[in-house]
Amino acid sequence: MEHFIRVYQLFSFYGQLLTEKQRLAVEWYFGHDLSLAEIASELGISRQAVHDLLKRAEQTLTAYEEKLGLAESYARRQEQLAKLDQLLKQLRDDEADPRWQQVFALLAELSK
Amino acid sequence: MEHFIRVYQLFSFYGQLLTEKQRLAVEWYFGHDLSLAEIASELGISRQAVHDLLKRAEQTLTAYEEKLGLAESYARRQEQLAKLDQLLKQLRDDEADPRWQQVFALLAELSK
Repeated sequence: MEHFIRVYQLFSFYGQLLTEKQRLAVEWYFGHDLSLAEIASELGISRQAVHDLLKRAEQTLTAYEEKLGLAESYARRQEQLAKLDQLLKQLRDDEADPRWQQVFALLAELSK
Repeated sequence: MEHFIRVYQLFSFYGQLLTEKQRLAVEWYFGHDLSLAEIASELGISRQAVHDLLKRAEQTLTAYEEKLGLAESYARRQEQLAKLDQLLKQLRDDEADPRWQQVFALLAELSK
């Protein structure tokens, strides 16, 4: 399961770099939990071809992460933003001050 | 000049995705302002080959930006962080409070 989540997370960063067929297969297999047989019938290719497609896509996603590390820097940024959020909630003196509201709106934007 | 800066900026995001030769050529041409002739002699290839190498590298960098948009989201994030920094400097009540120091240290980290 953890592996599924990992691949799907990498897909959210690098999905645009896959071929259309790879994208569909990954989306269906890792995102919507379709079986190899279902995807095979959907794409009009063999079960083995779907297997290869997914394997290749996974290798591509992993290779991009090794080179660009977007998932890693995203995780680090989320951690820093969570700390910032916690600190600022302690330091906030007046919840009604619109500037504080702007601060937390910006934090929410940055967490996307 | 603006074009030089743009290519070099994209290179800072996607340089790892170029070939070793492309990386060197871009680094020298756009980063260190070497001439085509100098790079040609350094790499032991023709001036025309360096030209093609650079053209190809630029196309690759631009294509990745079109798909992943890292330079664009970086710029947007920097803008949001600058606003946050400005707001927090107004709201900071006690510069000596170590929590405020932590806040600005985290902002600096996030701006990298």
